[in-house]
Amino acid sequence: MESWLDEIKWNDQGLVAAIAQEPASGKVLMMAWMNRESLQATVERGEAVYWSRSRQRLWHKGEESGHTQKVLELRIDCDADVILLSVEQYGGIACHTGRHSCFYRVYNDGEWQSVEGVVKDPEQIYSDYRGGNS
Amino acid sequence: MESWLDEIKWNDQGLVAAIAQEPASGKVLMMAWMNRESLQATVERGEAVYWSRSRQRLWHKGEESGHTQKVLELRIDCDADVILLSVEQYGGIACHTGRHSCFYRVYNDGEWQSVEGVVKDPEQIYSDYRGGNS
Repeated sequence: MESWLDEIKWNDQGLVAAIAQEPASGKVLMMAWMNRESLQATVERGEAVYWSRSRQRLWHKGEESGHTQKVLELRIDCDADVILLSVEQYGGIACHTGRHSCFYRVYNDGEWQSVEGVVKDPEQIYSDYRGGNS
Repeated sequence: MESWLDEIKWNDQGLVAAIAQEPASGKVLMMAWMNRESLQATVERGEAVYWSRSRQRLWHKGEESGHTQKVLELRIDCDADVILLSVEQYGGIACHTGRHSCFYRVYNDGEWQSVEGVVKDPEQIYSDYRGGNS
């Protein structure tokens, strides 16, 4: 009996949108997707586990980069089809481009302009975590 | 030529997720959807215009409640399929339940618990704005 999971309105692919926000900075870091299994895993681990639509499998955020997200709080919206996660972002990098947040481009006069720099080179992130040259 | 619109990865329904955040409080207020036309209208009006999936039409947020959202900034994520809006929420109520934010339920020990009260009774909101008894 997991009635809290049954209350969720999964879409026709069995997913809900999941927004990760960092309370310390107030920043919205990213949005990804969760299925029933990934949301349950998120609660059990206390770390964000998404559903990768491209890879069609569970995606424990940080599994390849080390940049896990410790979940401080989980909220659901009025329609029960969006999850809001309060997270502590390990390494301060949520984006696969090596930036703090995935929302680093701002609309300005007909263009999307990048306004946030890379914290760490993505190649470095992944090779460091995998053991790379060591 | 609206190349900034062409850069967006619309889903198979021609939509992107749009998250509205209030910078003053840092709160994520809601998530809704936008199609090309609604995003363009949002930029032109300077107020949030979503695409209502249930009504299949443009939804100028606040059109029935008066609770419009003045757009201060628009961002797009790394995958170009999620929009983040910084908004000034008119009336301080984003949710159709009369609450400040749509994310008023917190996960706690197998339950979603409401932790935010209603700012204004929804019936009152809509009758006030429509002229109701006056």
